[in-house]
Amino acid sequence: MTASSLSPAAALARDLLRCPSVTPAEGGALTLLQERLEAAGFTVSRVVFSEPGTPDIDNLFATIGSGAPHFVFAGHTDVVPAGDSAAWRHDPFAGTVDDGILYGRGAVDMKGGIAAFAAAAIDFLASQGGDLPGTVSLLITGDEEGPAINGTVKLLDWARAEGHRFDACIVGEPTNPNALGDAIKVGRRGSLSGTVTVTGVQGHVAYPHLAKNPVPDLMALVGALTGLSLDAGNERFQPSNLEITSVDVGNTAFNVIPRQAEARFNIRFNDQWTLDSLRARIEAALEGVPGLSCDWSLTFKSDASESFLTHDAALIDTLADAVEAETGKRPELSTGGGTSDARFIKNHCPVVEFGLVGQTMHQVDERVPLDELDRLAAIYRRFLETYFPAG
Amino acid sequence: MTASSLSPAAALARDLLRCPSVTPAEGGALTLLQERLEAAGFTVSRVVFSEPGTPDIDNLFATIGSGAPHFVFAGHTDVVPAGDSAAWRHDPFAGTVDDGILYGRGAVDMKGGIAAFAAAAIDFLASQGGDLPGTVSLLITGDEEGPAINGTVKLLDWARAEGHRFDACIVGEPTNPNALGDAIKVGRRGSLSGTVTVTGVQGHVAYPHLAKNPVPDLMALVGALTGLSLDAGNERFQPSNLEITSVDVGNTAFNVIPRQAEARFNIRFNDQWTLDSLRARIEAALEGVPGLSCDWSLTFKSDASESFLTHDAALIDTLADAVEAETGKRPELSTGGGTSDARFIKNHCPVVEFGLVGQTMHQVDERVPLDELDRLAAIYRRFLETYFPAG
Ligand SMILES: [Zn+2]
Ligand SMILES: [Zn+2]
Repeated sequence: MTASSLSPAAALARDLLRCPSVTPAEGGALTLLQERLEAAGFTVSRVVFSEPGTPDIDNLFATIGSGAPHFVFAGHTDVVPAGDSAAWRHDPFAGTVDDGILYGRGAVDMKGGIAAFAAAAIDFLASQGGDLPGTVSLLITGDEEGPAINGTVKLLDWARAEGHRFDACIVGEPTNPNALGDAIKVGRRGSLSGTVTVTGVQGHVAYPHLAKNPVPDLMALVGALTGLSLDAGNERFQPSNLEITSVDVGNTAFNVIPRQAEARFNIRFNDQWTLDSLRARIEAALEGVPGLSCDWSLTFKSDASESFLTHDAALIDTLADAVEAETGKRPELSTGGGTSDARFIKNHCPVVEFGLVGQTMHQVDERVPLDELDRLAAIYRRFLETYFPAG
Repeated sequence: MTASSLSPAAALARDLLRCPSVTPAEGGALTLLQERLEAAGFTVSRVVFSEPGTPDIDNLFATIGSGAPHFVFAGHTDVVPAGDSAAWRHDPFAGTVDDGILYGRGAVDMKGGIAAFAAAAIDFLASQGGDLPGTVSLLITGDEEGPAINGTVKLLDWARAEGHRFDACIVGEPTNPNALGDAIKVGRRGSLSGTVTVTGVQGHVAYPHLAKNPVPDLMALVGALTGLSLDAGNERFQPSNLEITSVDVGNTAFNVIPRQAEARFNIRFNDQWTLDSLRARIEAALEGVPGLSCDWSLTFKSDASESFLTHDAALIDTLADAVEAETGKRPELSTGGGTSDARFIKNHCPVVEFGLVGQTMHQVDERVPLDELDRLAAIYRRFLETYFPAG
C-alpha cells in the first residue's frame, strides 16, 4: 500500500506515530495536530502547565463553532515507552504500514483514536459548510501516561476559565477488548496505590542474630495483600482487584542482610468501596498479620480516584446507535479496565469513552488495522451528525 | 598518651590506619609495611595482579630465613569504606589515639592484626640473633574486602611458583566475639549465593487477565527458601542458614504489572553439605513449589566455597597454648562467622585464624584498645617461640 492511498484518518495516525512523544515529551505530536486542525478552521490554543517536581507539560485545546451544544473529544498524545525496541517487528516510532496494518507505539492508545476523531470532525465540518449548530472541541493532553498532574485536570480548569461549558464528552481511549464495537465505557473503577515499607537491621549474612532481615516480614505482609478478597463485583462493575506492582530491596551485596524492603501495590476498585473504606480495609489486613519482628509502615499515593458511573442516556444512546450502525453490533456498556482522564472530566460534563481495540496497547508491536481506524472515524462521524441535528 | 610512648605494634597500627587503603586502593599501606619489614631484614616482593573487568591489585610477600618449618602469616591491608565519616568520633583515616584506644577504619579488620604480627616477628627475629630455624613469611593482600580475585588466591600460586612451601598459617582476622582469647577459628562454613528469577507477562494493572504478575510466584519460591530447614548443626559447626539478601522488581509505574521479579539469597553452610548436595537441595525445594503460573530460573554465583575444618593439632594447640598463657583462658575452637581468605589458604597448608575482637569491624568508630593490640603481639610472639624451638 502506498502512502498516497491512505485515508485521512490513517495518514494522520501514521504522522502522529512518527512523533516520539514518550511521556512527558511533546515530540511534535501536538504541533502536528495543531497544524491540521488550524487548516480545517479550528482555533487552537497551546497551554503549558508546570508544577515543582514534575515535568512541564504541553497541552492543546482546539475549538470551532459557538454556543450549545458543546461537544468535546478528549485524548492524549503522550505514549508509554516502547520497551525493547529490538523486539518490535517495525521501529515503534516509524509509523510503518505493513499488510494493511499500522504499527507504532500509540497506534491504539491513543493516537489512532485522535486521528480518527480529527478526520471525522474535519469531514463533518466540511459537510456543514461552516455552519455548525453548536461547538466542537478537542481537549488533548500530553500527560495522561505520566503523573497526570499537568494535563487534563488543569486543562479542564483552564477551559472553564476561558468560558467553555461542555455538554458531553467522548474520551477516545481504546475501549474494545476484542473487536471494534464491543464496548463503550460508561464508568470506571477507582484506583488506589500504596507502598508497604519494612525496616529491619542491616548486618552481615554470617551473623544473622545481629541483624533483622526485613524480607520475611515483607513477604508475610505481601501475602496478606495478595490473599485479600475484596468483593465479588456487581451488575455494574467487575470485582475489585489488587496487584503487587513492585517489590524492592536494592541490595547488590550477597553478604549483606538488608535494612529495608518495600512492596508497591495498586487496587482497581468498584462502587462497593470509597477511598476511605478501602484504605481502612488495607490497613486492617496488614495490621492483622501475626508474628512480624520488624517495623513496617504503609503509605498511600495521593493520586487515588473513586469509581464513577455516567447516566446520560442521550450521550450513551447516540454513541451506541452510531457504533451499531457501523459495526452491526450493540456495544456493551462497560465499566471495566483502567482509569482514564474520564475520572477528571466527569466533574465537568457527562463523559463516556469509545475508541479502538485495546489488545496491543502498552505492548510490543502495538498496531491497528487501517480498516478499523477508518471504521472508528465513521462511527465518530455518525455520532457528530446525530448529536448536531442538520442546521 | 604521646606518640613516643606507643609500643612498636601500636605505632605501626597507627601508621597503617593513616594510609587510606579503601579497597581496591593500596593507599600507601603496603609500601609502609614493606619499609618496616625490609628494615628488619625481610626480603619483600610486591606483586600486582590484573584481570579484565576488575581493578589491578597490589599485594605483598615478605620472607626471612630458609627451609622448614615455613610459617606464614596472612592478612589484608585493604579496608571497607568508612561509611558516614561525619558519624565517626575521630577521622577514620587519622589513626587517632584517644584515652588508650586507637581509632580508624581497619583498626581491628585487620591492620591492627598485621601490626601486631609484624611487631612480634621483628622482636622474635631480634631475639634469635638472625639464626632462624626455618622460615617466617607474611602474605598480605589488598583484595580481601573486594572481589578477592587479584589477591590471596593468585598470591598463593605465585609463592608456590617461587618455590615456597608453607607448613602452617595463621590468618590475622578478628576472630574474637567479645574479648581477646575467646576463639580461634579452625574452619569456616561454606558460602553459596544464588538468584531466582520469575518471568511473567507485563501488562496494565487494570487488565490482569492479559498479564501474568511474577510477584506472587516469586513470593511462593522465596517462601520455600526461607522455610527450608537445612540442618541442626553439629559439634563442629553451627546450623546452616539461608538469608534472602534482596528481592527486586524495579517497577516504578503503579499502573504496570511487571514482567520479571528476582530474589537473591546467600547460604552459609556447614560440613553436612557439599556445594553439589546443597545446590541440589535448593533446586528440589524450588521445584517442589506447587501452583506456579510463570516461568522461573535459578542461577548460582560462581564464587561459592565449601566449608573446611583444620585438623593440625600442633598448629592449633601451639596457638591455643599461647592464647591461654597471655589471656588466662582457653580459646574456643570455632567455625562460626563469615568466610575469609582462609578458604583459599587451606588448599596450601593447615590454616587457623586468630586476631583482635571483631565487634567494631565494618562499623562507625572501628577501634582497638592499645593494651589489646600489645597482648595480641605477645600471643603471636609466644606462638613463634614455641613453633620455632630454640636453635
Ligand atoms: Zn491511553
Ligand atoms: Zn578482614
